[in-house]
Amino acid sequence: MRSICVLGSTGSVGVQSLDVARSLGLKVSGLSAYSNVELLVEQARQFSPTMVAIGDVRAQARAEAAFSELSPAPELLVGPEGLVQLAASRKHDIVVNAIVGFAGVWSTLAAIDAGHDVALANKETLVAAGSIVMERARRAGVSIRPVDSEHSAIFQCIRGQDRDAISRIILTASGGPFRDRRDLSDVAVEEAIAHPNWDMGPKISVDSATMINKALEVVEARWLFDVSPEMIDIVIHRQSVIHSMVEYRDGSVIAQLGTADMRTPIQYALTYPDREEGLASRLDLSSLATLTFEEPDLSRFPGAGLGHEALKRGGVAPVVMSAANEEAVSLFLRGKVRFLDIPDLVFEAMDSSSVVREPSLDDIVRADIWAREYVRGRCRPCTR
Amino acid sequence: MRSICVLGSTGSVGVQSLDVARSLGLKVSGLSAYSNVELLVEQARQFSPTMVAIGDVRAQARAEAAFSELSPAPELLVGPEGLVQLAASRKHDIVVNAIVGFAGVWSTLAAIDAGHDVALANKETLVAAGSIVMERARRAGVSIRPVDSEHSAIFQCIRGQDRDAISRIILTASGGPFRDRRDLSDVAVEEAIAHPNWDMGPKISVDSATMINKALEVVEARWLFDVSPEMIDIVIHRQSVIHSMVEYRDGSVIAQLGTADMRTPIQYALTYPDREEGLASRLDLSSLATLTFEEPDLSRFPGAGLGHEALKRGGVAPVVMSAANEEAVSLFLRGKVRFLDIPDLVFEAMDSSSVVREPSLDDIVRADIWAREYVRGRCRPCTR
Repeated sequence: MRSICVLGSTGSVGVQSLDVARSLGLKVSGLSAYSNVELLVEQARQFSPTMVAIGDVRAQARAEAAFSELSPAPELLVGPEGLVQLAASRKHDIVVNAIVGFAGVWSTLAAIDAGHDVALANKETLVAAGSIVMERARRAGVSIRPVDSEHSAIFQCIRGQDRDAISRIILTASGGPFRDRRDLSDVAVEEAIAHPNWDMGPKISVDSATMINKALEVVEARWLFDVSPEMIDIVIHRQSVIHSMVEYRDGSVIAQLGTADMRTPIQYALTYPDREEGLASRLDLSSLATLTFEEPDLSRFPGAGLGHEALKRGGVAPVVMSAANEEAVSLFLRGKVRFLDIPDLVFEAMDSSSVVREPSLDDIVRADIWAREYVRGRCRPCTR
Repeated sequence: MRSICVLGSTGSVGVQSLDVARSLGLKVSGLSAYSNVELLVEQARQFSPTMVAIGDVRAQARAEAAFSELSPAPELLVGPEGLVQLAASRKHDIVVNAIVGFAGVWSTLAAIDAGHDVALANKETLVAAGSIVMERARRAGVSIRPVDSEHSAIFQCIRGQDRDAISRIILTASGGPFRDRRDLSDVAVEEAIAHPNWDMGPKISVDSATMINKALEVVEARWLFDVSPEMIDIVIHRQSVIHSMVEYRDGSVIAQLGTADMRTPIQYALTYPDREEGLASRLDLSSLATLTFEEPDLSRFPGAGLGHEALKRGGVAPVVMSAANEEAVSLFLRGKVRFLDIPDLVFEAMDSSSVVREPSLDDIVRADIWAREYVRGRCRPCTR
């Protein structure tokens, strides 16, 4: 029986990963959360991991008290180093990285260096440090298995195919909650986090509303599948039934379809190369009636074009994009900036950042910190 | 450079196979036609095959005169034995069997026994003798590569995947020219051979209009992919963009999409496992706008259910279905029976045929002859 470690287990993808682990009868060897001690304890009670980690050092005392009541009590690790130590433990066979944000990069690298296959839901790992991470994975002989629906679809559509013959990657996008809204100047937070098709966390829901999620996915696809940015297209597909497609040079397009249920791509990453019975309901095509496709409207959603722009600029541009976006979304969720400020702040940060060719991890960290500070600094005048 | 032999080269699929061969720069080592000597000579002039065959013995003198004028003149073979001899020649690397009707079975078997991979467009090969043909191919170590768009799609969608995890084969159907016509009692021949999406020969166009093409495809899929009939579904997809799909037990569905151009599946069968630049125009999803899916209406198109019924009955039922249909379509094209008589005649033939379990090739031939005679006999009263 395989042992899995779920990093970020109290988030949306983390919770669903545990649903899948339960359904597959997998052993759970590690769990981590940033600060949700209560849910993490509950999960530990159900899955009896040998190790747990809490990312937020301020929650240490609370976590120590809560976990000491479990019998047997799991080993408790704390802080960013604790997360890395958990990811690197030899107790796991596969590490699910469902941490949201840049912090997830270190856990991915630790898991790779420890020789673990990684089921990757942390977008920033590849957006910020794609070339470094993929090279490290190659050297370590481990596989990076995408967990989000789009990249899992592509991963499935290139499996066993003639890789040299790929001519285009077609990322589908639901278009988010505002795909039909003309005026985006007065978007409220609760509107932005209500996604029409998927059940997701707030950060990712806002990324979907701005379509910056597609920008992040373009960069991820570039590294995961080793394709040039010009080969990656975005198409609006409102029904979220086709999760992405790959076009080959003979004109054939291979697509992966399914219900909008994250447990399918999570499970595929865990069982690959096999497929097991899934938790998601089956697609009923006859009752679907209609699938539609449209080009994205970059004038209303400039965020959708950010990924190609960042890859064109190269160097630290993608991490600046990702970090500036993370900060801008955080400010938006706290009511500090407006919805349309998000892509503007990201563009401004990319325009203002210094150019670093072939950045090291240190350069990437510096660019990440710089971009966050830049966005916070730009925001001050608009604080309400 | 690979050498291909195209059997039935003057038909719709044959001509397109030669387009593909020209585009790929393949050597054409053999060509055959039933009776269209003029086009066959023209093709021989262009491709300089070392051997040609004419199936219709009545065309022998005409063919001898015409081919003797070529320099160098190809070796000319005549009659059913000539077709078999051509298929069995060691000069080919791959044999495209684009013969229409039961006569194609012998050529497929000859090609297999000679150790050739077969690009198979002849539906009757698998419908009539699927278990025998697939077993012979397995023993000979050759591959049977489907050429029609649906089975090519499935062939592409299972490539490299976990075969044990296939839960469903979803054959898409355009629904044919009468998908929206309520009254099918007065269908004219010219209406039945005008297909809305595909450019095809008359027999196959009528099969599409009755939806008996899907019955034949269900039987073919059963043998090609070794799946049980209950695992094969038919869904109406008017746009013919998704050419078929495979559902896996985790709920994922893999689909193959493309423009409605037979040259794509023909080429895939010739270049497999590689993919080369294709002749078909690329799919432009954004301009497609809409893909729809509906359940087939078996009350208007009882022919669509014939495949499952024939497989359920087993034995010679599929060959009786195919032969009765071929004869009924021929009678319809000659104005001898009405459109709705076609499925009725097939059902009647299946009901009246004797049951033969595990039929030999001889049994299959006898059942084929019996079914044709039965249909011709039933037709006499309705001769105009």
